[in-house]
Amino acid sequence: MQYPSKSIEEAVTEIAHLPGIGKKTALRLALHLLKQDQQVSLNLAEAILNLKQKTQYCSNCFNISDDLFCNICTSARRDKSIICVVEDTRDVIAIENTAQYQGIYFVLGGVISPINGIGPSDLKMEQLFGKFPNSDVKELVLALSPTIDGDTTAFYISKKLKEYQLKITTIARGIAVGSELEYTDEITLGRSLNKRVNYDAE
Amino acid sequence: MQYPSKSIEEAVTEIAHLPGIGKKTALRLALHLLKQDQQVSLNLAEAILNLKQKTQYCSNCFNISDDLFCNICTSARRDKSIICVVEDTRDVIAIENTAQYQGIYFVLGGVISPINGIGPSDLKMEQLFGKFPNSDVKELVLALSPTIDGDTTAFYISKKLKEYQLKITTIARGIAVGSELEYTDEITLGRSLNKRVNYDAE
Repeated sequence: MQYPSKSIEEAVTEIAHLPGIGKKTALRLALHLLKQDQQVSLNLAEAILNLKQKTQYCSNCFNISDDLFCNICTSARRDKSIICVVEDTRDVIAIENTAQYQGIYFVLGGVISPINGIGPSDLKMEQLFGKFPNSDVKELVLALSPTIDGDTTAFYISKKLKEYQLKITTIARGIAVGSELEYTDEITLGRSLNKRVNYDAE
Repeated sequence: MQYPSKSIEEAVTEIAHLPGIGKKTALRLALHLLKQDQQVSLNLAEAILNLKQKTQYCSNCFNISDDLFCNICTSARRDKSIICVVEDTRDVIAIENTAQYQGIYFVLGGVISPINGIGPSDLKMEQLFGKFPNSDVKELVLALSPTIDGDTTAFYISKKLKEYQLKITTIARGIAVGSELEYTDEITLGRSLNKRVNYDAE
């Protein structure tokens, strides 16, 4: 594609480096920015620069943070004896949005994935295991993706921490609320039958 | 949604101001940038700043340009006696990609649209009419959208320039190449029957 000016071409190239944004969308965004006030571009550029420069990772849970420790780890209201192990920050946000969890988190930074060449040493495993046995943690909730990689990671963590007096749990799997049995895949349906729970009228 | 840090929140807010990008996509893009090198964010921010600061509009055709006059208007290979009138820069790019047009352009900056409160004075009409009658222009190609607004604009321009010895043409409308008659809307099909052309075996 031929662009009318070099600055447009550069902007399109850079914007199209973002995931899920092709050259056509990038051009649309660039032309949109051109039509707006200078201030809009300034704000966007500044926010992008600040993003990388100001963002830190919490020294306790490795979630994204403004300070040395994140808001969740420093909150007096959170139960420090329960740690929820997740893959990345988006999972923390998703769980926080449910408002159902009062413990703290631990962000692994991914899952073990031999196919993608990601082993335990590429994740924050050492930092996770380093918390034990000298800690007040009583429960570890493994909230990893229900995939082979997620299951492998959960298995690895549970095996490594077996020797400690620690309750290891995982988020419930089964039929999603609002979904229909007819359209649920066989593995999920079969598993939710095998792992059926007592009916609770609460 | 609660964000883990202020810099993330600011970045998400700014990115989500872009058209077609919601908060979820903005968060995905922000987290992607966080994972990349500092240089990626620097390049993106710089390209966005340059976009607005360095971009000019060609004094002749009002297309986006690096200099006072754009590459097309200054090219010796282009036929200055044919002007193609388009709505915006994207139309210029689309027509240039066909490699079928050798004349120059005139970018109106939109079409007359009473519903959106856009009248002739909001567009570059004066600058277009100012070219006549003292010019070498022989043909004006109206390449506007086949909508009511586009048709209104074409009618307005043709009426204003009627007094000059000027050939006014418009891009052909009809069935798109590769489409099926069965699925073509009635207006397009009816019009392409009424405005049928001599068969040309070329």
